[in-house]
Amino acid sequence: MGNSFLLSELAGKIGAVLHGPDAEVTGIAAVEEAGPGTVTFLSNPKYARQARETKATAVIAKDPIPGAACSFLLTPNPYHAFACTIELFHPPVRHAAGISPMAFVHPEAEVGKEVSIGPFTVVEAGAVLGDRVVLYAGAYVGKGASVGEDSILYPRATLYEGVRVGRRAILHAGCVVGSDGFGFAPTPEGYRKIPQVGTVEIGDDVEIGANTAIDRAVMGVTRVGRGTKLDNLVQVGHNVTIGSDTVIAAQVGISGSSRVGNRVMIGGQVGLAGHLEVGDGVMLGAKAGVAESLTAAESPAWSGIPAMPHRTWLRMAMLLPKLPELFRRVRRLEGRNRPEGEE
Amino acid sequence: MGNSFLLSELAGKIGAVLHGPDAEVTGIAAVEEAGPGTVTFLSNPKYARQARETKATAVIAKDPIPGAACSFLLTPNPYHAFACTIELFHPPVRHAAGISPMAFVHPEAEVGKEVSIGPFTVVEAGAVLGDRVVLYAGAYVGKGASVGEDSILYPRATLYEGVRVGRRAILHAGCVVGSDGFGFAPTPEGYRKIPQVGTVEIGDDVEIGANTAIDRAVMGVTRVGRGTKLDNLVQVGHNVTIGSDTVIAAQVGISGSSRVGNRVMIGGQVGLAGHLEVGDGVMLGAKAGVAESLTAAESPAWSGIPAMPHRTWLRMAMLLPKLPELFRRVRRLEGRNRPEGEE
Amino acid sequence: MGNSFLLSELAGKIGAVLHGPDAEVTGIAAVEEAGPGTVTFLSNPKYARQARETKATAVIAKDPIPGAACSFLLTPNPYHAFACTIELFHPPVRHAAGISPMAFVHPEAEVGKEVSIGPFTVVEAGAVLGDRVVLYAGAYVGKGASVGEDSILYPRATLYEGVRVGRRAILHAGCVVGSDGFGFAPTPEGYRKIPQVGTVEIGDDVEIGANTAIDRAVMGVTRVGRGTKLDNLVQVGHNVTIGSDTVIAAQVGISGSSRVGNRVMIGGQVGLAGHLEVGDGVMLGAKAGVAESLTAAESPAWSGIPAMPHRTWLRMAMLLPKLPELFRRVRRLEGRNRPEGEE
Repeated sequence: MGNSFLLSELAGKIGAVLHGPDAEVTGIAAVEEAGPGTVTFLSNPKYARQARETKATAVIAKDPIPGAACSFLLTPNPYHAFACTIELFHPPVRHAAGISPMAFVHPEAEVGKEVSIGPFTVVEAGAVLGDRVVLYAGAYVGKGASVGEDSILYPRATLYEGVRVGRRAILHAGCVVGSDGFGFAPTPEGYRKIPQVGTVEIGDDVEIGANTAIDRAVMGVTRVGRGTKLDNLVQVGHNVTIGSDTVIAAQVGISGSSRVGNRVMIGGQVGLAGHLEVGDGVMLGAKAGVAESLTAAESPAWSGIPAMPHRTWLRMAMLLPKLPELFRRVRRLEGRNRPEGEE
Repeated sequence: MGNSFLLSELAGKIGAVLHGPDAEVTGIAAVEEAGPGTVTFLSNPKYARQARETKATAVIAKDPIPGAACSFLLTPNPYHAFACTIELFHPPVRHAAGISPMAFVHPEAEVGKEVSIGPFTVVEAGAVLGDRVVLYAGAYVGKGASVGEDSILYPRATLYEGVRVGRRAILHAGCVVGSDGFGFAPTPEGYRKIPQVGTVEIGDDVEIGANTAIDRAVMGVTRVGRGTKLDNLVQVGHNVTIGSDTVIAAQVGISGSSRVGNRVMIGGQVGLAGHLEVGDGVMLGAKAGVAESLTAAESPAWSGIPAMPHRTWLRMAMLLPKLPELFRRVRRLEGRNRPEGEE
Repeated sequence: MGNSFLLSELAGKIGAVLHGPDAEVTGIAAVEEAGPGTVTFLSNPKYARQARETKATAVIAKDPIPGAACSFLLTPNPYHAFACTIELFHPPVRHAAGISPMAFVHPEAEVGKEVSIGPFTVVEAGAVLGDRVVLYAGAYVGKGASVGEDSILYPRATLYEGVRVGRRAILHAGCVVGSDGFGFAPTPEGYRKIPQVGTVEIGDDVEIGANTAIDRAVMGVTRVGRGTKLDNLVQVGHNVTIGSDTVIAAQVGISGSSRVGNRVMIGGQVGLAGHLEVGDGVMLGAKAGVAESLTAAESPAWSGIPAMPHRTWLRMAMLLPKLPELFRRVRRLEGRNRPEGEE
């Protein structure tokens, strides 16, 4: 709001090269909505037509689009340059330091410098908040739980007792970290709860989506590694280990004791059974059901229920609607191949 | 509680015609549980047996059921008449106007007339509440967010900064509107967050289920159109547009930038990939996985993963359990068709 | 913490028999992580190798593992003995009785003895809390709702008006009980809400996971039976009835008016359509889609979309990736069987 830059100046700030005339830009917008005076971006060359039709003053892209009237800010990683540009036009909100008089911070909690604590938040005994931590209204930090420097808990984000969150983590509204894992021993009188006495560790730079739930370990630790991003409404069972720089889309469920590697990408609504391993770099297509361990060496991408190599799945999925026809064709073949004596 | 009506009187109020003797009724109940003095309803004639066996004094239905001893309240839209009747017996709760002394309402928030604000709610600076808005305990209205007249936020419903909610909307407990969309640019050092600087607009008469999450746009607006109903635990990604009078069952996930039309019906646990379009009036069967745009002209209903016309899916699904048999049959055919010289 | 036992003493407390030398143990750990002085457990004999390699002083198991250096605590139900042992080393937290001065307890609420009520909790008029109930920060007990003795509501667990919860129930953070069912009557002007005037009853010894949502009945009661356990992010629609000692994994969705029996086991992400019945003792495999009633007599376990007997599904699922090959084989057969005169 109010920020403006020359394209040449912007190019320098985002590591791009200006191609075309220089001009002033005052905002950033999606390619369909961009007007004069704005900059937009194109991650995928297949949207070249949109670039030719845009009214934006400049487009962030890998290569100039022939026939486009606008200027270009050229960079090998347009998506990253786009992120930088948004931040230049919309600098992150600074939260005023201070503790709301309507918050409850236990006298035995340890609170860092310049923290910002909203009304109706709770910080229990023994909890530790690093410097510049932001707790929005209604956030809950249980007994002995800790939150690293510069992390943000949005409204009602909840850390159960003893849970540890790293630095620069972002926890969205309503997420729950450290609820009891789902473990019950059958007895003749019904299920008996297995006390869940482990904890959860969330690494630095992790983002956790709204209303996502991560269970504490029965014993030991449920882990989410550095830089990993979880979308909304994800379920992470007890004793799960998730590596670094892994991306997990909304509504994914990971059952207890499974291990997910580094740089894994998991599509929406995927389900993982328990006690299995998904190797580094694996991609799981949306809605896949993973019942056994799998690695990127076997196949870089997997889809389907149960999961199979993505290329196999693509061919299989294309044929599913033709299954009735296949049954008819086989019946016809059988008619022509009836052994003598059969009707 | 305590309300009672003559059937003839009730018929007038709900736009029905009384068929059979008049009598007093004092309540409404499900057909299996209805006793003397109650009215019940029958949306589907296939439950005729239940109507014949009911002890209810009257049944709301399209046509009288031959052989039933009760009276009938006949109407072309029994479900609608049923809704009216429930309301007559259970008039909606009136919330006493007033602001709890245990709420936090920022002095720079704008609060309409006769609002009802429970304890531990937060209304941040610049937020606007229309007349008669109800905020249950723990609801959160972020900076500059707005809530239209007569809307209700149940406990802990959360609006992030700047989100706009229309009139007569109902937001159930724990729902989150305006959390960051899921966007990260890969860099050699890990993922870099794309700041999500857009917003969300929720139309008039929308209902949002418990613990549902709707992300703000990266730029621009995530939209939910007038009269649309979202069930519990639904995920709506950034920059999604949902039309009017669309109904979305529980645990559905809609990925970023997809567009869902008007009067669409989406069954439970359906998943939509990103950047696609679902046309007006389309019906999506439970658990469908939609990976490409589709319209009602191609097929009114779609099911399966990936989604195919529902009729195709029905035939396909019936044959799936017979797949092992089909493989055996083909093997047998091959045995009979071995070219000479092969074993 | 600090507890220590002789193995012989521990055996007596958990109903096991000591096999091997007696020794002191001071903690319990997972088999991979167990060190000297700890006890661990082995529910499944297929992990025998782990038992042979463990550094634990003793292993809880059904039978001694030949070749293992450790002592054994032998019992027919190791999982149950494991639960008891955890509790001996980690006795359950005692919550100090008392009502936070920062809670809101309506003067017309009825509060039992020795309850523990955290800050920013709300107990509305007419609500009833049994003895020793624990309400963590931000929990919400609506008008006239009741919570039985010894039950625990974790932060922000929410009971709408009139909902009844039994004794010794555990409700995890963010769960919602009693939100409106999803019912709308179509009218020419759009959907009209069917008022949801029923309630919810949660039995004794039920556990409800984080961010799970259970809707109130349109009329009558949505029920969760005694001893039933629901994992995180589960959806239970209006008028659903769930029996006793049933276990429901994360992200399951049960549509309105369906009935789930006793001792049912439902895997993660399963979906049930509405108005159907799942018989006592049925097992539903992860991600199954149940569209029709089914019983354990027909098949003890069911999987797939739509659900079929699990054994059928296993065979079918193994063949799915071979579908492209089957199409090729049929095409080849057709080539050999072209009737005379065809090309």
